[in-house]
Amino acid sequence: MAKRIAILGASGYTGAELVRLIATHPGLEVAALSADRKAGMAMAEVFPFLAHLKLPVLQKIEEIDFSGIDLCFCALPHATSQAVIAQLPRDLKVVDLSADFRLRDPAAYEKWYGKPHAAVELQKEAVYGLTEFYRDEICAARLVAGTGCNAATGQYAIRPLIEAGVIDLDEIILDLKAGVSGAGRSLKENLLHAELSGGTHPYSAGGAHRHLGEFDQEFSKVAGRPVHIQFTPHLMPFNRGILATVYVRGDAAAIHKALADRYADEPFLHVLPTGQLPSTRSIAGSNFVHLGVVGDRLPGRAIVVAALDNLTKGSSGQAIQNANLMLGLPETEGLMLAPVFP
Amino acid sequence: MAKRIAILGASGYTGAELVRLIATHPGLEVAALSADRKAGMAMAEVFPFLAHLKLPVLQKIEEIDFSGIDLCFCALPHATSQAVIAQLPRDLKVVDLSADFRLRDPAAYEKWYGKPHAAVELQKEAVYGLTEFYRDEICAARLVAGTGCNAATGQYAIRPLIEAGVIDLDEIILDLKAGVSGAGRSLKENLLHAELSGGTHPYSAGGAHRHLGEFDQEFSKVAGRPVHIQFTPHLMPFNRGILATVYVRGDAAAIHKALADRYADEPFLHVLPTGQLPSTRSIAGSNFVHLGVVGDRLPGRAIVVAALDNLTKGSSGQAIQNANLMLGLPETEGLMLAPVFP
Amino acid sequence: MAKRIAILGASGYTGAELVRLIATHPGLEVAALSADRKAGMAMAEVFPFLAHLKLPVLQKIEEIDFSGIDLCFCALPHATSQAVIAQLPRDLKVVDLSADFRLRDPAAYEKWYGKPHAAVELQKEAVYGLTEFYRDEICAARLVAGTGCNAATGQYAIRPLIEAGVIDLDEIILDLKAGVSGAGRSLKENLLHAELSGGTHPYSAGGAHRHLGEFDQEFSKVAGRPVHIQFTPHLMPFNRGILATVYVRGDAAAIHKALADRYADEPFLHVLPTGQLPSTRSIAGSNFVHLGVVGDRLPGRAIVVAALDNLTKGSSGQAIQNANLMLGLPETEGLMLAPVFP
Amino acid sequence: MAKRIAILGASGYTGAELVRLIATHPGLEVAALSADRKAGMAMAEVFPFLAHLKLPVLQKIEEIDFSGIDLCFCALPHATSQAVIAQLPRDLKVVDLSADFRLRDPAAYEKWYGKPHAAVELQKEAVYGLTEFYRDEICAARLVAGTGCNAATGQYAIRPLIEAGVIDLDEIILDLKAGVSGAGRSLKENLLHAELSGGTHPYSAGGAHRHLGEFDQEFSKVAGRPVHIQFTPHLMPFNRGILATVYVRGDAAAIHKALADRYADEPFLHVLPTGQLPSTRSIAGSNFVHLGVVGDRLPGRAIVVAALDNLTKGSSGQAIQNANLMLGLPETEGLMLAPVFP
Repeated sequence: MAKRIAILGASGYTGAELVRLIATHPGLEVAALSADRKAGMAMAEVFPFLAHLKLPVLQKIEEIDFSGIDLCFCALPHATSQAVIAQLPRDLKVVDLSADFRLRDPAAYEKWYGKPHAAVELQKEAVYGLTEFYRDEICAARLVAGTGCNAATGQYAIRPLIEAGVIDLDEIILDLKAGVSGAGRSLKENLLHAELSGGTHPYSAGGAHRHLGEFDQEFSKVAGRPVHIQFTPHLMPFNRGILATVYVRGDAAAIHKALADRYADEPFLHVLPTGQLPSTRSIAGSNFVHLGVVGDRLPGRAIVVAALDNLTKGSSGQAIQNANLMLGLPETEGLMLAPVFP
Repeated sequence: MAKRIAILGASGYTGAELVRLIATHPGLEVAALSADRKAGMAMAEVFPFLAHLKLPVLQKIEEIDFSGIDLCFCALPHATSQAVIAQLPRDLKVVDLSADFRLRDPAAYEKWYGKPHAAVELQKEAVYGLTEFYRDEICAARLVAGTGCNAATGQYAIRPLIEAGVIDLDEIILDLKAGVSGAGRSLKENLLHAELSGGTHPYSAGGAHRHLGEFDQEFSKVAGRPVHIQFTPHLMPFNRGILATVYVRGDAAAIHKALADRYADEPFLHVLPTGQLPSTRSIAGSNFVHLGVVGDRLPGRAIVVAALDNLTKGSSGQAIQNANLMLGLPETEGLMLAPVFP
Repeated sequence: MAKRIAILGASGYTGAELVRLIATHPGLEVAALSADRKAGMAMAEVFPFLAHLKLPVLQKIEEIDFSGIDLCFCALPHATSQAVIAQLPRDLKVVDLSADFRLRDPAAYEKWYGKPHAAVELQKEAVYGLTEFYRDEICAARLVAGTGCNAATGQYAIRPLIEAGVIDLDEIILDLKAGVSGAGRSLKENLLHAELSGGTHPYSAGGAHRHLGEFDQEFSKVAGRPVHIQFTPHLMPFNRGILATVYVRGDAAAIHKALADRYADEPFLHVLPTGQLPSTRSIAGSNFVHLGVVGDRLPGRAIVVAALDNLTKGSSGQAIQNANLMLGLPETEGLMLAPVFP
Repeated sequence: MAKRIAILGASGYTGAELVRLIATHPGLEVAALSADRKAGMAMAEVFPFLAHLKLPVLQKIEEIDFSGIDLCFCALPHATSQAVIAQLPRDLKVVDLSADFRLRDPAAYEKWYGKPHAAVELQKEAVYGLTEFYRDEICAARLVAGTGCNAATGQYAIRPLIEAGVIDLDEIILDLKAGVSGAGRSLKENLLHAELSGGTHPYSAGGAHRHLGEFDQEFSKVAGRPVHIQFTPHLMPFNRGILATVYVRGDAAAIHKALADRYADEPFLHVLPTGQLPSTRSIAGSNFVHLGVVGDRLPGRAIVVAALDNLTKGSSGQAIQNANLMLGLPETEGLMLAPVFP
């Protein structure tokens, strides 16, 4: 019998992506959907692309009976999430897609998010949801914190290289290209089609992006010493996909081998043959990650490129992958959808 | 055990879309792939988005052993298809995605395609593949002709209205907006990103588009008298999706009821509530069709709008739907993938 | 010496387009800019693409000294405009880009805009700004009302055909494709890149669009009897450009001749050779209009297609063309910029 | 009286962009246009966006009478250009837009372009066309070599920093985002809308891009020692614009000052206030360059970003700027067109 799922914050893109993926997931069924301002509406009104599905009407969170729910996805805005999760039943399995539980250190949280954490106890309990690197902990977890979508992309490219000791830890530059759906469905002038299409620009440049908190936390943990990378994202005129171009110091062959070895048995990570580099088009709509490596003409330098879909592997697909583990289902169940091209 | 499938012409978009859909279809497996000029290459070289799949290497058609094949999809160019299918084993089930077997009348074929048909016997045998209107014949068919993608969209909007007698047969105008993947992967200047993005224009205007052959054939057959519509398509700066805006004479409520009644039990056709109109975004990547009706301010006139994905419901999804029927599988198997939004 | 110009509502797209065009207009200079909520900001902060220009700081309207202003462009929201213009000096020349003075009949205004007009006296005074058809009146006018951008496009295609008596007045269907900048810089979910790119959909279908008020007024006036067309616009995933596809009854050659004759001496209107149809890409960024005609396969029917840039010829370019006339400058001055392609 | 201009290779994008700019240039007129395969056609057939202009019919090069030509733009493919220019009158002023005369060292040419140069004498004569850095030489030149569009963008960001000695010459990484029109109008699968839109990918990564030849030549010359940067471009799903993100070592304030000082009197170069970074949207369609600097969170590191339009400042606008100098016209004449936004 399918596990019963609640999705809080179902009127945003990650909420909708969860529903899209669960639609063909044999082991999960959507039992409750919340959307505060849109409570009472049908999901098909909010997202006509889901019109073919029988779905519960949107409710306010407080109207949901969590007693029959096996797992709850929290796709709420940052800061809201910690308050809501603190009120949920303590034995309810939760996968949070917000930024609220990504940073384990309350001081780091306060530094990057500008105010103290309101649920420090939960913060301690939360497991960081980068599945391929926290699989055992996730299987046993009650509360899993989904990673930042940029943070996931960068880590897939860099983390195995730190583990394998094949790059200079003080010389890592991540130039990232991010599709616009990562910014969510919020009404901002710079997200309008007329403003965004047909060009590109950097944002949060030079070390201002919050996902650096995750990079610092995770890379330093893996390295056993502080690691601080350079990271500048660029807003792209397309909806889905992140491309991370990482400039590192090290031997390209050793780097390629480190990635290929680390991901050899991973169902969603695909390391391309040496010299071949990924495109976001080749993973859009799917839970797959493509990785590639080329040596630079300057000796001892290499470029690592990773591509994933920010809404799927970067958030909602990752969330379901983690939920599969937490619920004892096969890890890849419902997630083997091929990318959509063209 | 999964049915063994061959795909001829696998290096084009409809070929790739077949592979994408079969990837998560539990009842089908790809046993052979052909691509004449790319024979010897791996599918992942031609379409890196399929890199996660284990697929046979591309072959020339003459290298394929059809003895173990249960059904063959023919995604070859027009005119090539009829020559190739004529050489295939006579008991091999075939779904053709080209234009070669859509028109039953050899004279009509010659009129619209400019030369005599080279396989007139097969032409007689072929069943027109608009599943919802030829289901019984398709179940029993050996050779099914996939419809034109524009032709399918227009027919979903108009055909039930002719059947129900609720519109004026001499006053049907179809203004169609077609995504560019319908033009295939061919190297034409007007299909370059720099030429096509950021604007729109009509093409084959005023009655020059070949899919009119299908409209004439099918609408006249349903009406029992000649029906000739006006049809002008416009090339859209997006990859997937067709929107058909149909201007008709008739009562909007009667028209809406005719569509709703006709499609009430159809798994892939979704008639929106009166007054609500579809968007191509809400069906992209899926086998679903959305339909809507509004009355015009001018009494006795109405507008019917249909949207589908040209690569899925307009060709490869339709082909698999038909193959399911021909192979005795559940009709919707492998085709319930939700649209991808945003 | 250059004429001194004020632009009210300079923080929207039509305001910015006015500045863009005036930047290389030898006879005009920007003397004052208003933007209510952004007063105090530099124009380059609001629109970095104008950073190379020396421009006055944004002010509140009440801060502007109109005594030295030769002409004022009003690019304010609908309804605001009538209130503001009523407060301006009575001898100040004004070109209004809003919808407030397009409809001469107060009842028609109330019908289409939902409330009574607040400046009925001014409404009487206003000249409808479709330059090629109101040139003499515009030369003598103090207050000119810019047309709707869709309304302009449709009129360029249809108006000469009514004048020439070459089409059936009761059988005019206008299927329009509108670029998104026509919707302005307002924060609406459906205007986000993630919602709008990659697809299309109709809106205000079946006779609900306000520009029908203009069509009704103008076409009926030209015909000397009521003319009511069908008009359904579609939102396009590009920023600039409107394509009007008009289905009419009449002889294609006569129709082509009517357009070619009418526009023979018009500097901005270009009728393509028979059978050739326009693309919005070929006029984007310019004040030019391209028109084309094809006969339909159904005898006695034809298709007329017009393309213009909604921000230029559809609003701000038109406004400057009218201002040139009102100020005694050459009509084409500053407006001969070539379209931008690709 | 306007100078008479010939454009060889007028059927490509840079040729068309030259015509677009000359259309409103008071000092230049198009006297001859060549296009080998399209000889005999009107320019408006090849580029309908130029339909409003009176232009000479396309000819073969050998049909052009160069005796009355003041200056010839050569917008021919690489390698073709050197052969053609070698046959032109020796006193004809020429601005070449190809790669043929960018590299002064024949060995460097052969290394990057794969075969020996066929006009080594001309190569010696050619002046490198980066106007702001070779202004005096260009004024006196007969043959000017237009720079690569990526090469121009990178040099605007980096060159003043080398001149000023404010960055570490061995630690320069250029991550570049390039609009697709830079690839020209050639028929390649990867340039199709269906392949290119909606995503991004790197190309010529790790030091394989030919524009590195220019960077090496110029940066080493300025530094007085070999300088070799890392350079990886990414293909962007938009038509116009290049964004160069440059990672350097140095003090951000000193870097900003070096740029601001160097470009203080340059009419087309605009250094944004510290902390503000450019967008390609803000320069598209114009000859302007926007530059910005931010310090990184890692001490001693900074990010410099430059944006320009590859077809304008990156090639055809630059070419006209150089032609203005060569012909004794004001440098900015015809080039002050504002960018087009949105």
